[in-house]
Amino acid sequence: MLISSERADRPNEFAHAPVHRNASIECPFCPGNEHLTPPEVLTYTDRGAGTWTLRVVPNKYPAIGMQADPEIAGAHEVIIESPEHHATLGQQLMRAVRDRMLYWKQDERIRYVQFFKNSGEAAGASLEHPHSQLIALPMVPARVREELDGSARYFEDHGRCFFCDELREGARLILETDQVQAVAPWAPRFGFETWILPKAHESHFENTEPAAVQALNGALRIIIGKLDEAAAHPAYNVILHTAPLHEPELEHYHWHLEILPRITGVAGFEWATGYFINSTEPEEYARLLRDSP
Amino acid sequence: MLISSERADRPNEFAHAPVHRNASIECPFCPGNEHLTPPEVLTYTDRGAGTWTLRVVPNKYPAIGMQADPEIAGAHEVIIESPEHHATLGQQLMRAVRDRMLYWKQDERIRYVQFFKNSGEAAGASLEHPHSQLIALPMVPARVREELDGSARYFEDHGRCFFCDELREGARLILETDQVQAVAPWAPRFGFETWILPKAHESHFENTEPAAVQALNGALRIIIGKLDEAAAHPAYNVILHTAPLHEPELEHYHWHLEILPRITGVAGFEWATGYFINSTEPEEYARLLRDSP
Repeated sequence: MLISSERADRPNEFAHAPVHRNASIECPFCPGNEHLTPPEVLTYTDRGAGTWTLRVVPNKYPAIGMQADPEIAGAHEVIIESPEHHATLGQQLMRAVRDRMLYWKQDERIRYVQFFKNSGEAAGASLEHPHSQLIALPMVPARVREELDGSARYFEDHGRCFFCDELREGARLILETDQVQAVAPWAPRFGFETWILPKAHESHFENTEPAAVQALNGALRIIIGKLDEAAAHPAYNVILHTAPLHEPELEHYHWHLEILPRITGVAGFEWATGYFINSTEPEEYARLLRDSP
Repeated sequence: MLISSERADRPNEFAHAPVHRNASIECPFCPGNEHLTPPEVLTYTDRGAGTWTLRVVPNKYPAIGMQADPEIAGAHEVIIESPEHHATLGQQLMRAVRDRMLYWKQDERIRYVQFFKNSGEAAGASLEHPHSQLIALPMVPARVREELDGSARYFEDHGRCFFCDELREGARLILETDQVQAVAPWAPRFGFETWILPKAHESHFENTEPAAVQALNGALRIIIGKLDEAAAHPAYNVILHTAPLHEPELEHYHWHLEILPRITGVAGFEWATGYFINSTEPEEYARLLRDSP
């Protein structure tokens, strides 16, 4: 558990007004309000238009990090994905994630950078303007460690990467481009859960070629669009799982983006056991998303 | 993951009407509607009044079990905790849990009975009438296995039961009776998370004396009342973690009831890492609940 008293003070646009936009709180992520956030650590600009297209700033209410406690190696950053308040998901988002991971990789105390996006109140978002987050951590998260161990066992048993095998499951394929594939995972925890993976085996996201990162970003935007159609604009989380920064290239691990729609709730049984009950087969979710415009 | 197509068909009182009671769906758990549920596997009655006070019935929409597939050892039962639609939590609930665990313990294929209660839509409840659930499983859940392993390591390192040590943490004590204690756990995942434990070391819930089970039920009702006051009637889950049915008495494990209020959402970071961010110390939660009427 991380205790962060700063976070208790953060604003919540959704608190008492489940409307599309709450005008009572000035949006700190809109152009013109840059003074409401800490100074940028990364900015992309459109030279033609003379404006920014994406900003990364330290989180004003950090969950961890030097900002809160200089003794703790860590940082919490916000990616403001677009200047447009009502955009869905930025076009340069995954490029920014890669850039920041390469930045933090230079710090030997940082062992993992966790990227995540919360979209919609049910998924934990407190502001509507399209944004994501990065937490640089001095340890490898427990869940990532479990996945690394599980995939190492799979490799030992089968002599192949589990994720490369997933890419061969045609019945669960949702989308394919030259460089990435979107699939319904073999054991979805949430309805319409979707993973996007690079077709070429690669354990470290930050080592992936910019063109593949751009293809990932495009596929992510398409999947969110399909999800909006198939499940009426659900709240969702997106998380990236990748190999720890300072580990060598791993033949048993393959980075992937997980899109976790929050359609079905997580109830007592799931918390108690760690098992998820699903009323639909992953092949059916894949078919529904494939067929969705 | 468990796939259960039966569950897709179940009714949802909350679906489009966030009102206190949706009269458009006849409550299958109210007296007079007994024909809407499968026949009871356990009934408690009030001899004076000539009515039932608690019923346990097979779940009409089972997540697992002989009902769905005769090859799979398992069962999914619903505890209708009270005849009163607007009651909060039944007075004989934990007694019924113990009785059903003793019943399933006779079946050697059943290795664990998971008790859980979902209260409120945000906690996964689909009906309002006070009810809980039991899932009899042919395996020990992953999460329980992790807890058993963790507590075995603690015992090895310290020569004491982790949970017995928790009972000595005065600053996190919320409530104490002759037989049980309610505490804020050292690493709460949710705001106001509360655990109730027997003061006498006991690994198996079903071996606990009826008087202590009754004390547990009383403490649970008091905690829910305090929670309703302190956090404005939040949705919550209750889960029981206990030693696997056919394992011998364990000196390192201690059964406990976890009350998980669903005040703060679970967002991308938590799903990605397995770590929970909390803005309040457990000692503060304990103080707030102690002081709550």
